[in-house]
Amino acid sequence: MLNAIIENRIIESLAGQFAHSPQQLNSRHETDAEIVRLSDGCTLAITTDSIAEEIAAGLYTDPCLIGWMTVMVNLSDLAAVGAQPVGLVISEILTHSCTDGFLAGLHKGIRDACHACGTFVLGGDINHGDRLILTGTAIGTCLNGEFLSRTGSRAGDLLFASNRLGCGNAFALAALSGSFGLPLFIHDAKETETVFQPRARLKEGRALCGLATSCMDTSDGVIAALDQMMRLNHVGFAFNTDWSASLDSWAQRVSLEAGIPEWLLLAGRHGEFELLFTVSPERIDELMLRAEENHFKPILLGEVKSEPAITLPMEAGNIQLDTARIRNCADTTGGKVQSYLEELLSMDREIREGVINHASD
Amino acid sequence: MLNAIIENRIIESLAGQFAHSPQQLNSRHETDAEIVRLSDGCTLAITTDSIAEEIAAGLYTDPCLIGWMTVMVNLSDLAAVGAQPVGLVISEILTHSCTDGFLAGLHKGIRDACHACGTFVLGGDINHGDRLILTGTAIGTCLNGEFLSRTGSRAGDLLFASNRLGCGNAFALAALSGSFGLPLFIHDAKETETVFQPRARLKEGRALCGLATSCMDTSDGVIAALDQMMRLNHVGFAFNTDWSASLDSWAQRVSLEAGIPEWLLLAGRHGEFELLFTVSPERIDELMLRAEENHFKPILLGEVKSEPAITLPMEAGNIQLDTARIRNCADTTGGKVQSYLEELLSMDREIREGVINHASD
Repeated sequence: MLNAIIENRIIESLAGQFAHSPQQLNSRHETDAEIVRLSDGCTLAITTDSIAEEIAAGLYTDPCLIGWMTVMVNLSDLAAVGAQPVGLVISEILTHSCTDGFLAGLHKGIRDACHACGTFVLGGDINHGDRLILTGTAIGTCLNGEFLSRTGSRAGDLLFASNRLGCGNAFALAALSGSFGLPLFIHDAKETETVFQPRARLKEGRALCGLATSCMDTSDGVIAALDQMMRLNHVGFAFNTDWSASLDSWAQRVSLEAGIPEWLLLAGRHGEFELLFTVSPERIDELMLRAEENHFKPILLGEVKSEPAITLPMEAGNIQLDTARIRNCADTTGGKVQSYLEELLSMDREIREGVINHASD
Repeated sequence: MLNAIIENRIIESLAGQFAHSPQQLNSRHETDAEIVRLSDGCTLAITTDSIAEEIAAGLYTDPCLIGWMTVMVNLSDLAAVGAQPVGLVISEILTHSCTDGFLAGLHKGIRDACHACGTFVLGGDINHGDRLILTGTAIGTCLNGEFLSRTGSRAGDLLFASNRLGCGNAFALAALSGSFGLPLFIHDAKETETVFQPRARLKEGRALCGLATSCMDTSDGVIAALDQMMRLNHVGFAFNTDWSASLDSWAQRVSLEAGIPEWLLLAGRHGEFELLFTVSPERIDELMLRAEENHFKPILLGEVKSEPAITLPMEAGNIQLDTARIRNCADTTGGKVQSYLEELLSMDREIREGVINHASD
């Protein structure tokens, strides 16, 4: 079932033959970060992520944002397993055209992101190349060996987000609006910071340890995360009728001004780096208590269903989304941003024209 | 004194403003891997390194070698601090022109290298871009919190290598010989494997813990490592008169056939990934005992001197090498391989013509 997704197939074909460490507690796809138990009993969480395609596509141009994201995409994976960060190492491929000012911005972004999350750059590596690429690796520890996994949700559990959704895709739409023939929504780096500066949900992840039945970050968007959780857990997710209230207000405004349907803020692949998690209905009071103690407000999105499908109430009815098509279209459209958006818009058209089947209520 | 080296200046300017983690035991430049003590007392070694410039320069073309080196360059850093590897995460930037066969070779190289060192790929990240780039991050543990550092050598200590030297630069010379107008010395991937397939000296590093007064790997060549140790320790290194006996025999043959002076096998920046280490003369018996138990033969290279200079006995006399010029010329020649070699050859010419001062004996 995982293999219906092109990205999963690529990972399997490339990494499928690697031997599994006897110290590693997670299987492939099961967790946002790799979990390793050391012989002295200490449990580590380790993750690596590059900022490459976002730069090449022109999505990230502000050096501060590039530095910030290099740190945050990795810390977000630690958050999604409930780990406490120890620090990061960063490998930088710089170009000879990077100015001193650009490099200063890049390192300010890295520094600010570490400071915001109370963690540190431990070291790194510097190379030069044709394209700017930053690769971060974050290491964390799992208190008492406890960690969150993507698997474990059961029908009847409730689905939550750690915060309002849609900012990641709204930012992508706004940042790339020039190439879509839309008016530019973001004018400068200052505005970028205001609308898109995701923070890894570290305290939220730690608060969910031993409570959430499953958890995953939305680094590739909400629908991609739910689709992966659906495939791993053999369950489905049904959004509440008022799901659009869970969208960030700026994201809603971008959607309105760009004439892009709101649900595409969940479907696009540029995520908001929030956590999606499921909790058993008997433990909702405990969730709310822990959330209050940790100063966050979980947003109820819907419910876990036994049928493996993702349903979203829309004007056209209660729609069962073709989440494989949504996830795969980044690959089937050959990485072209314009074709990618057109494919998503044609899915929306099919829904409104009734081509796509309605889900049973 | 570190600042006489362009690379050190770049690192300082980029990383100099990052805050230092209270859990990190090493300062910048002091160790080959970052050392972090966790709150439960466990000590980790962490390092990251990209294979980017070697691919862009045409030095690494065989996919198996690229995969192998992605693992080994990182494990070699763990070896140089005496750590035991826990595993690696690998971020791959693949190009759309990578064939299935190429990718199979790449992953075979990664697999073989992990197997050779008894370690594991824990996870990774896959992106696509214009250029193939692999970034590995290795995590290891330091038994009893002990680790090797680049600092601590004292005048009178003896200088050793973990094995014969020069293979890295001989390989670079042979692999790039076409662009130097020299006959090609390496004909296929099979031959590459025979002459250049470095193995991280993990058991050697562990055996040296608590014994070597300083240690560093030769990832950037022997002279670069010694120069850095000289600057960090405020000591010098004097090679033995029979230093050329410490060269690998294949490397010697390449030097002879290419008409490249042997000492450039130590000076070039493509290292052999051996360990250079210093041991107090009173503890040589202990070194030899530990080496025998661990099936390796330390090669005596010379002695640590109080004057911070690196001297090499040559035909022209006992030469004090301008190691800053040697290290910086990769930067001063703008990354052009041909100019880099010409600059090294002109240093050799100056030595033979007596332009460069002789060291006092």
